[in-house]
Amino acid sequence: MKNFIYNSPTKIIFGDQQISKLKEELIDYKAKNVLLVYGMSSIIKNGLYDSIISICKDLNINVIEESKVRPNPDISSVRSGIEKCKEHKIDFIIAAGGGSVIDCAKAIGFGVYFEGDIWDVYLRKADSYKSLPIGAVITLAATGTETNGNSVISNDETGEKRSVGYPISIPKFAIIDPTYTLTVNRHHTISGSIDIMMHIFEQFMSPTTDTMTSDLMSIGVLKSVINNTNKYINGENTYEVRANLSWASTIGLNWILGIDKIGDWATHRLSYPLTKKYGTSHGYALAMLFTNWARVALKYNEEVMKRRLTILGDQLFDGLDYKEVCNALDRLFVSWGARVDMTELNISEEDINSLAKNALALGSVGQVTEIDFKKTVEIFQLSNK
Amino acid sequence: MKNFIYNSPTKIIFGDQQISKLKEELIDYKAKNVLLVYGMSSIIKNGLYDSIISICKDLNINVIEESKVRPNPDISSVRSGIEKCKEHKIDFIIAAGGGSVIDCAKAIGFGVYFEGDIWDVYLRKADSYKSLPIGAVITLAATGTETNGNSVISNDETGEKRSVGYPISIPKFAIIDPTYTLTVNRHHTISGSIDIMMHIFEQFMSPTTDTMTSDLMSIGVLKSVINNTNKYINGENTYEVRANLSWASTIGLNWILGIDKIGDWATHRLSYPLTKKYGTSHGYALAMLFTNWARVALKYNEEVMKRRLTILGDQLFDGLDYKEVCNALDRLFVSWGARVDMTELNISEEDINSLAKNALALGSVGQVTEIDFKKTVEIFQLSNK
Repeated sequence: MKNFIYNSPTKIIFGDQQISKLKEELIDYKAKNVLLVYGMSSIIKNGLYDSIISICKDLNINVIEESKVRPNPDISSVRSGIEKCKEHKIDFIIAAGGGSVIDCAKAIGFGVYFEGDIWDVYLRKADSYKSLPIGAVITLAATGTETNGNSVISNDETGEKRSVGYPISIPKFAIIDPTYTLTVNRHHTISGSIDIMMHIFEQFMSPTTDTMTSDLMSIGVLKSVINNTNKYINGENTYEVRANLSWASTIGLNWILGIDKIGDWATHRLSYPLTKKYGTSHGYALAMLFTNWARVALKYNEEVMKRRLTILGDQLFDGLDYKEVCNALDRLFVSWGARVDMTELNISEEDINSLAKNALALGSVGQVTEIDFKKTVEIFQLSNK
Repeated sequence: MKNFIYNSPTKIIFGDQQISKLKEELIDYKAKNVLLVYGMSSIIKNGLYDSIISICKDLNINVIEESKVRPNPDISSVRSGIEKCKEHKIDFIIAAGGGSVIDCAKAIGFGVYFEGDIWDVYLRKADSYKSLPIGAVITLAATGTETNGNSVISNDETGEKRSVGYPISIPKFAIIDPTYTLTVNRHHTISGSIDIMMHIFEQFMSPTTDTMTSDLMSIGVLKSVINNTNKYINGENTYEVRANLSWASTIGLNWILGIDKIGDWATHRLSYPLTKKYGTSHGYALAMLFTNWARVALKYNEEVMKRRLTILGDQLFDGLDYKEVCNALDRLFVSWGARVDMTELNISEEDINSLAKNALALGSVGQVTEIDFKKTVEIFQLSNK
């Protein structure tokens, strides 16, 4: 186990109708001018937009909107939000929606205080040190971004997708009402479940030894995600199924499962150009790559991967041999309607080289084994047949 | 799953030699006059006392000591600490030791601001609303008190042991260096492991339904405690074993495993007079009662207990029938050298009545089934033969 400092200060407000608690939070933070960041029409359809506006009206809060934030949010939304914050003296940001909306709000939050081009932060050419306070209202079980400092932003002009993580970006509170996720369609529900599992795998696939407590906790959350997603697939679209997935999503990436070890995160980095160029949903792109990453990683670092896959085989798949774990995961994802290859994207050999270059623009990725250009191409090629 | 609000703001500083981080924490909190609360000589023997004093000296911090805090800390230490805080204008409390020391520091922390007799708070006749900031340095894997607001205090004069829990008492930071636990003897190591398990069981034994995510996370932590304690029993007194137990101890009671459900806590309440009157260590007293509580609870609320014991049988004991789970736990604790009955205490039938009255002084306990006087006697009698 490695030394660590863990600080997860987000106040989590979880459950049915908990949006009513937004009022006292806005009072506590003395919000006067709020930027409401959201996506397309889903928060209008499910009533969340009206709830937020009504609470702000009661409190005489001035609400400015940054709406139409896309999945894979573009830096243009961030720039637009920053301008609005400056113009309207915004003192609090409410992000209402899925992970993209919250990630965009985080970028706006520190962008307000950043001198220079905000994209430079995502290119790791500069750092950010201060942010407006953010409150998150999450409507999708997937990212866990509502209690962490991570933000992933795309740049349409350059074709890039990049991530940063800052403690200053951790939301002050997160309202998690699983009811909002009941209307999420099958495509995005499955993508979300895969995303939760992938966050746990990225932390779990680690060269750090002797991390049994967090490893077995992780297995527990993975089992719950698999079990509740299977229930959903079998027609149980209930509050209880959604609540368990929502709580798993938050725990999956508030770092309590992985703070004691070095995470890998290569699959995430390799998946970014896939979502950027082909519009594949984040979860599905991860499913197209993860087990092939694992197969390649097993080849180059047998010691670590054998140890990790053995735990998954023993604990998650009832004693399955470690060599069969990737196949079992593939079968699971396929049974949910996901693809575990990217053949449907019609990617040429040349495209693979360009995807690999894009994924590694900031250098090699991964911790279990260094994923350089050659190994990236190897993983993409495995997924392309 | 029930609605909840979860806020766990303690900064956790975990690992080997992390005591060095105390310096920047004390600077951050602008500490000038510190009350150092500790127990007997163990923090002097293991060097922790010298580390703390040295850091305070570097920072020109005035250190006042409240030492010799006992296991099952007495209200007299609390009163003495409060007086010292007032006399020396204490602005920060460092609690260095096991759970008793930290619980005592919490009582001192809010006692400073409390008008009237501090014991009234523990008798639930009055509430506390403000506390001095507390930093915890934990030297035992058992209580989890280093990241929660709970405090258990005894009263020698009245023969009572009582608990309260306040968010204001949650330590600002917790330094958890598993190295300190390497010298804990076998008796207290086992007591600590049982205590960790019992905290998880108290949260897990719940009438709340559909809590699979936290249930299976809990199972993971329980597996790690059992596995690492077995390693210890088999001679592996290593940093890694202790680190996994330490992390399990913190997670076991920072409420992330149980915030989504109503916990039971009857066994804890019944165990208090046992430790108070017979000096039995907390963990061992819990082991003497828990499975008999479970047997009685199964009789009076078969629905809930069958559901809960079935999860334990399936997930913790590889598919064991639910009816056999209590026996399996008994065998486990006995294999660690603990007793699962209280016959060695030579308790008479009359003593049982008086113990039961003491345990229920504030009314019936438990949530799975209401443990009234009759059921309390039933549990004690089962444990007394």
